[in-house]
Amino acid sequence: MNAITDTPAFTPSSRAKVRRRPQRARYDEKAVFEILDAGVMAHVGYVIDGQPFVTPTAYWREGRKLYWHGAAASRMLATVAESAPVCVTVSFLDGFVVGRSGIVHSLNYRSVMAFGRARLLTDPAAKRAAMDDFIDRLYAGRRLQLRPTTEAEIASIALVEMEIEEASAKQRDGGVGEKPADEGWAPWSGVFPVETRIGAPRPEPGMGAGGAPTPDLAPYAEGARLDAALTSAAATAQGLPVST
Amino acid sequence: MNAITDTPAFTPSSRAKVRRRPQRARYDEKAVFEILDAGVMAHVGYVIDGQPFVTPTAYWREGRKLYWHGAAASRMLATVAESAPVCVTVSFLDGFVVGRSGIVHSLNYRSVMAFGRARLLTDPAAKRAAMDDFIDRLYAGRRLQLRPTTEAEIASIALVEMEIEEASAKQRDGGVGEKPADEGWAPWSGVFPVETRIGAPRPEPGMGAGGAPTPDLAPYAEGARLDAALTSAAATAQGLPVST
Repeated sequence: MNAITDTPAFTPSSRAKVRRRPQRARYDEKAVFEILDAGVMAHVGYVIDGQPFVTPTAYWREGRKLYWHGAAASRMLATVAESAPVCVTVSFLDGFVVGRSGIVHSLNYRSVMAFGRARLLTDPAAKRAAMDDFIDRLYAGRRLQLRPTTEAEIASIALVEMEIEEASAKQRDGGVGEKPADEGWAPWSGVFPVETRIGAPRPEPGMGAGGAPTPDLAPYAEGARLDAALTSAAATAQGLPVST
Repeated sequence: MNAITDTPAFTPSSRAKVRRRPQRARYDEKAVFEILDAGVMAHVGYVIDGQPFVTPTAYWREGRKLYWHGAAASRMLATVAESAPVCVTVSFLDGFVVGRSGIVHSLNYRSVMAFGRARLLTDPAAKRAAMDDFIDRLYAGRRLQLRPTTEAEIASIALVEMEIEEASAKQRDGGVGEKPADEGWAPWSGVFPVETRIGAPRPEPGMGAGGAPTPDLAPYAEGARLDAALTSAAATAQGLPVST
């Protein structure tokens, strides 16, 4: 993750600049988008009367914009003025690193911190398009199979758009660090990788057509890595016609 | 998760009170601790000059106190006054819920939002004890096998303690919701469960004793569910003598 790439960069101000272990940080779109497109659950941070809140919520990305709805949207937007500063963080735990002294113990991870200002989507057509895009980002082509969303349902949804102003990506993926003083100590040392995978599908009794999952659900095949499934679904969605 | 239990409760003020889908919320210690003890990565939210930051970081729990160190500690504590209000959120993605209309699509998850005030640990003995506790919380008995941490290493670590003042636990673990208007629509409907598990251990070449992982690492056996491994390790740690 430390190589310089030629994709557009998010120029970090002091806000996004990684202070601790800066050698693990990158600020280019490729690094940031790769991590964002491999996830579905973000932790959205916002401030109400000086109190920070961190709400886990489903999100998706379109270009340099992030979207989310639900709990984070409702509490945040019921209380905070428009253009509230937010921090959206997405992270993956990739492994446990155990070594010969306490200080070299670590976790392998990937993460993005994205900063911007939250804006409530209010136009019903824009909200409908965004919700369609979310379904298709996860399950390409699925919205065409669904009972159309009603106007009342669109009205009931709080939906936020945030243009990413700055972002940083950070990753640790190596083996065990060592200190000169560790020499000669012999506890088991190494890495326990951690992987998140899809389990066996559970069709809902009495609902839908039954049988095997349809092609829109193909990335979520039993045993698939979740980050790979979401990355693949995002790539497919980018090839779909834009929703109307 | 909706049953009333008789464990001590975190009485929620408006800060911790769950607004959206309150039927999914609980405020008792049992529900909150179960989720906290099943995780190792938290998202710590804090505010610097009105700007929210959400930093992913390793954490652990002792009674009603949470601890973390590293990046969140260093940025937060370099900039924010003591007793900074923080929100520590821990979440697990448990599944994708797909149904017959856009609005019933959902995620299964477990999450805790814990509120309190961050306090920097400065006493070297307290910092050493906390770091030992963290090693033992994850790998019971391991600290006795490690090269002892030096005073300089203790001094180099920024370590935060937060007493949980309020907390809420929230969970969705059901099947597909339905709306009357969904009747007759037949896309595949159901749940794709998501599980995080430990992979094959990777011993560090040229370091440590090699061979099979030692008993302190037993919870992280290949194929173990991560949340179960961390829960089991936490339970074992609570039976260990207190570090000195």
